[in-house]
This record gives sequence, C-alpha cells and structure tokens, in this order.
Amino acid sequence: MEPFLNRAAMSVITLLTDFGSENAYAGVMKGVILSIAPGAAIVDLTHGIGPQDLTQAAHELETAHRYFPPGSIHVIVVDPQVGTHRRIIAAWAGGQVFLAPDNGILPAVLDAGVVTRAVRVENRQFCLKPVSRTFHGRDIFAPVAAHLFNGIGPGRLGPDIPWPDLARLHLDAPYWTEDGVLAGMVIAVDRFGNLITNITETHLAAILAKGAGKKIEILLNRIPVGGFGQTYADAAPGDPLALVGSSGYLEIAVNRGSARRCLKARKGDGVRILTL
Amino acid sequence: MEPFLNRAAMSVITLLTDFGSENAYAGVMKGVILSIAPGAAIVDLTHGIGPQDLTQAAHELETAHRYFPPGSIHVIVVDPQVGTHRRIIAAWAGGQVFLAPDNGILPAVLDAGVVTRAVRVENRQFCLKPVSRTFHGRDIFAPVAAHLFNGIGPGRLGPDIPWPDLARLHLDAPYWTEDGVLAGMVIAVDRFGNLITNITETHLAAILAKGAGKKIEILLNRIPVGGFGQTYADAAPGDPLALVGSSGYLEIAVNRGSARRCLKARKGDGVRILTL
Amino acid sequence: MEPFLNRAAMSVITLLTDFGSENAYAGVMKGVILSIAPGAAIVDLTHGIGPQDLTQAAHELETAHRYFPPGSIHVIVVDPQVGTHRRIIAAWAGGQVFLAPDNGILPAVLDAGVVTRAVRVENRQFCLKPVSRTFHGRDIFAPVAAHLFNGIGPGRLGPDIPWPDLARLHLDAPYWTEDGVLAGMVIAVDRFGNLITNITETHLAAILAKGAGKKIEILLNRIPVGGFGQTYADAAPGDPLALVGSSGYLEIAVNRGSARRCLKARKGDGVRILTL
Repeated sequence: MEPFLNRAAMSVITLLTDFGSENAYAGVMKGVILSIAPGAAIVDLTHGIGPQDLTQAAHELETAHRYFPPGSIHVIVVDPQVGTHRRIIAAWAGGQVFLAPDNGILPAVLDAGVVTRAVRVENRQFCLKPVSRTFHGRDIFAPVAAHLFNGIGPGRLGPDIPWPDLARLHLDAPYWTEDGVLAGMVIAVDRFGNLITNITETHLAAILAKGAGKKIEILLNRIPVGGFGQTYADAAPGDPLALVGSSGYLEIAVNRGSARRCLKARKGDGVRILTL
Repeated sequence: MEPFLNRAAMSVITLLTDFGSENAYAGVMKGVILSIAPGAAIVDLTHGIGPQDLTQAAHELETAHRYFPPGSIHVIVVDPQVGTHRRIIAAWAGGQVFLAPDNGILPAVLDAGVVTRAVRVENRQFCLKPVSRTFHGRDIFAPVAAHLFNGIGPGRLGPDIPWPDLARLHLDAPYWTEDGVLAGMVIAVDRFGNLITNITETHLAAILAKGAGKKIEILLNRIPVGGFGQTYADAAPGDPLALVGSSGYLEIAVNRGSARRCLKARKGDGVRILTL
Repeated sequence: MEPFLNRAAMSVITLLTDFGSENAYAGVMKGVILSIAPGAAIVDLTHGIGPQDLTQAAHELETAHRYFPPGSIHVIVVDPQVGTHRRIIAAWAGGQVFLAPDNGILPAVLDAGVVTRAVRVENRQFCLKPVSRTFHGRDIFAPVAAHLFNGIGPGRLGPDIPWPDLARLHLDAPYWTEDGVLAGMVIAVDRFGNLITNITETHLAAILAKGAGKKIEILLNRIPVGGFGQTYADAAPGDPLALVGSSGYLEIAVNRGSARRCLKARKGDGVRILTL
C-alpha cells in the first residue's frame, strides 16, 4: 500500500543545500518546482551548509525537520558524488517525505523505526530532460519534489529499497574514556559563535547520575570553559558557559560574545566532561 | 475593545533577526509558522543584523515597515537577553503588529502616538511546549505570530502594558556643538559600502536655513568628503559625495565604489557638518 | 495588440539584485510588491551579484530564466546609474516579462528574435510617490512588477522602444588566435570554487571537429589544468578537471575541492584551449 501525505495540512517543500546565496542555483530549483507545482510553499532551511559537509547537513536536518507540518517534503542537496552512480532516495517517515542522495544523511537523521518506506528514485519521467551530470538539484530533486507535492506515490518513482541497505555516514559519537571522562567534539558553530557539540542531554544525565555530588568540569581543547547555565545570560557578559541548547545538544557559548572567537575554537575541536 | 487587523488586505509575516543564513534557525521559525498558519506569506526583512545589534535592527525596521501592507505582522528576534525575565511585547500601531523583546527596539521605531495597544506576551497556550531557554524565536515568537495571523486579539496574549513602561534604547542622536557644527555618526554600512548616518533631512534643512548663502562642508572622521548630490552618479566614478538616501538619512557614498573602503570608514565613525 | 501573460500558469515574480542579504533592501521590495499584488509568489534568483556587476547579472539571468514558468516576471536591479536619465525597460519575450535598467543586461540575455515587445517604463502612475533618486528597486521596479502581475499591459507603462535601440553590454566573447587556440576567460566563480568560463559547448564542438584525433589541452593562466570529464568525480579527489557545466558553459573544477583556491584563480582569468 502506498503511504499518503496528509494534504489537509498545507504541505511545504523545504530546501537544504550547500549552494550558498551568491548565485541562482537555489532560485532555479524554485523555478522548476513552481513550474510543476504552482501552489507549492517553499522554505529555505538553509543554503549555507559548508561545501559537501554531510555531517553539518545531517545536523541541520535533524534539528529542523520536526518543526515542519505533516506532509512536508524535505529536499536535501549536499551531494559530492553528483553525476556518479550514487543513488537518490525518497523516504517516508513520520508523515513527511525526505529526498536526498544516498550518501548517509538520511540514516544519520531518521530512526529506521519511523521509516515506513524508502524507494530509489529512478523514473526519468519525473525529471527534467536532459538530466545534466552536475546539477541534479535542478534536474532531478526539484522536479521529483514537485511531483511528490502534486501527489504521486512512492511506487511511481522507482523500486523499494530496504532501509538497512542505504549508505551510512561515519559520525563521531561521544565515548567514555577509561578514566570515566566523556569525550565529544564540536560538530557545528553558529553565527553567534556558539559551539554546538555532539554531547546530548542523555549523556549529561548519565554524568550527573554517575557524579552525584561531585563537581563537573568541561574542557574545550583541554582548557576549562566555565560552569553550566540554562541560558546565555547565566554567565557575565564576555564569560563562557556550557548549556543545553534548544535542540538538546550541549553548547559552549560566551554571553554577548562569540565562543568561537574568545576561545579560538572551531568545528572538530575536542570537548571533555569530567567529574572531580 | 480589541483592535483588529485588516484581513481584507493580504497580511504578511516579516522576520527580522540576527540569525544569519548559515543554518536553519530562520527556516525552523517558518516551519513553526506554517504548521499553525498554513497560508501565511512570510517575508525575510533580513537575517543579517549584526549579532545582538539592537540599533541596526531598529534602523532596518524603521526604514522597512512602512512598505508592508496593513495587517502585516513584524517579528523581531534580536534578543541578547533571551531566556531571562525580559518581557516580550506585542504592539499594534498604524494597522500593523510588532512582536519583539522588550529591549528598546520598538520604542526606537514607533512613535508612541501611533501605538493603539501594547500587551505583554505571556500566555503559554500560544507557545510551543516546552519553551526552551535559548530559542524563543522558534518557541514563542513564531507560534505567537502565527496565531496573530490566524486572528487572535491582543487580550488573549497577556496583560496590557503602558507604552512608556517599555525599555528604551540609548540611541546616539546628532547634536549641535557650541560652534554651530552638527555632529552625527555612521549608524549603518550597506553592502555597497554606503555610510548611512543618523543625520536626517530635517537636520539638513536646519543647516541650510542657518547657513543660507554659505558653503557647507561635510567631514567624516574630520576629513572633508566632497559635496552634496542627489544621486550617486552626481560624483565622478570613484569620487565621494553626500546625499539624502532613500529613507531620509544622510549617506556618504562613492560613485561606483565603496565609501567604506575608499574612506576607511565604519559604523560609529563621526560625521560633522559645518557652514563656512 | 497587447501581449498577454499566461495567467493560467501560476506566474512568479523573481528578483535578481546586487543588494546582498545584510539589510532589508530586498525585503522592502517584497513589501511593496505584496501591498499591490497580495497573492504574488516571489522568488529570489539571487541578491548576491557583486555590486554593480552587470556581466554576472546577465550570466545568472541567462542560465536561470528558462526554468521559470510562463508568465514569470523577472525583475533585475543591478543599476549603477540609478537616479540618472538611464531608461527602465520592460520586455516581453518567450512568454515571460523582463524588467531592468537599460544598461545592457537584457540584450545580453535575450535574443532579439524572441522579444515580442519592449517599452520604456515611464508612467509614474504605477510607481510609489515620491520616487527617490537612489532606490528605484523599491519605488519603480517593485510596484511596476506588481502591476504587471496584476495584469496591466505594456502600453500602459510607456512608449514602445525598438529593441536595437537598447544599450549594449560589452561582453568578452572567446576568440580564435592566429595559432588556432581558443582564448576565453573565467566569467563567474561559484560557491564551490568552480570556475565558469565564457566557452560554450558550441566552441568545444568546433575544437573537437578541428582537432579530430589530436590531444586537447586546457590552460588556465597558461598552466595546464587536467583533462575533460563529465562530472566532478571523473577526477580524483583534489584533482582539477574541465567539464561542460549544467548550463552549457565550460567549467574548471576540482573534485571535492575548490578550483578557485587550488588554482589561485579568479574572475577574469584567461582560459585557453589548444590542440596538440
């Protein structure tokens, strides 16, 4: 049976790419979508993903998709292998559709349990003609998203593909050292210079349980970065602190300043949490 | 009595933030809005406000809001105090609604005389659950804007708040020195490198009245920057000039060039006008 | 007879400017459009054109416009001569409308053969009042686009203007040297660092015909840059290659890297193709 999108809700097509805003790549995708699905509401998640940065794309998609209405169609074009034989996947999960290259982003974001169906996109009937070798965003992703918006079902796009067969992204997860230290890393830096780590509330709860009554210390590149807070203003202006950000990840921030600049930090830097 | 938005006009929700476009913060706000108000038209005023730059936000809002249709809902999320006890305000003025933190932006933009009502936003019924401590744009501003779009009245949001009670922004206004010199400053620099000052047409009219028949000189950081013009091309290519910009503020520009670069200027630099 | 837009298709207003996204210039244009044409769908082609870079604007418009539906209204505001006596042109071509300053962009993009009508925009009835000298995007282009969206015909805007009378842009076309070398240049660099040249598939076909059986070499700033490929992954990661990009222009790229950075290249650099 075909899963159906809930068209009673206004569905939205979102775009998540590494195209930047300096030229018309994203604009052209919108032209293609609106040519096929004239009434579509299109929202830019962001086009500011670092060129070919799959882990950043996965992070943005994970923290954003749940805030969109049922029926939303998320189009992810961060695609270092464009034009090769890498597959393109459409997956139905949690009442939304996800369209992305088979490069690991979707399995990094979607729990297999919520995925009701995944198909390989290969029916050229729903693509522009000809399909270029270098801009599948325009020639495949945009028109397929528009046809999905118009109501075509998964079976029209191509054969089913078992979820476990998809490519996996190697994501560095936090781990416990022999000394009982939690070792994670900075996975994203936002415009405010906040350092978002791969350490989650769940990890923090384990630390708090383990170290009940003890002092907790947070090290960035082996240097202490202050205490925990609940919001930025819990530190004095210019001072660093750690807090659980709005998506459930540990952040290191500087109140009214930039932790990236003040702490000379960047993506990939090590973050360690220990109990003293 | 509740003021009503004119829903005959197509109302628009505008977003003015310092979120940048590198990640999905603004996109997520749109997801929340469209989940609650599916038909809403959303316009980005800009997400390029310098991090936590309240004066720049006030300047952009002031010059932009009057070009939007009656019923428009302007959402301003430049909010250094997010998650503290600072209040959130919804104000009705000139047939539009303004939703912003109580940090001085609205009183800097709206003449008290045009404000018909202001309320403190505190009814959690119109917010996401839970409300995070660090992303009120997503959890409060976006859903409240969507509910306003859907027609809820001010009384539903929270108690009335007298306009004079709102926080005030300290804005550097131009002043007259003892020598009769008008001393202002650069308050914004646009992408073309045009230097926008806090000196208005009204100030210039006073100078012209005062110095009738005399030569007028404009100094940037105490260095003369050329004469007055009406449009950029009134100076030779590469030459500086002063003119009244499209929003009524004195600008210093370089025809076909960047005044920021050519004159090594930046926000905060002093601008003086004297009659010789 | 007036040409009519096909309003059965959903028409779209696109914006192509050099305004950047740091402030509300583009947002204000949308406010004006939606005040006059409440249901208009507005798409940003890009606001990232380099300040006053007419050739880049022409390139973006040329590669983008054909992907928009019939009836689309393309608004181009890259306008170094704003506020002077330069004309503003509306042109009907291929079922779309193009609104731009008379500075050469349109003749660089539109084949005279497809242009069914061009008029000079001068009826102030369709402009904001007053019209500023420095922001015609807001005061003329936006409201005229909205009125076109609402269905006014060309005759209402101003007198017909013969296409050959429009200003021409000097575009550097590739040429053949005496030695039979094709000499072109880099005309754009995208966010990935791909170098887009003014050499087209047609030029390449001529080279292939001429040099049948011979080896072809591509030089960037007189240095060889590797062989031809069909997509980025045809070179090893970090290696350069040349390929025909998605819009039919020769590109020099580096697989999983930036040709701009690796080859220290920029817009204007010379590209030569020779047969050995």
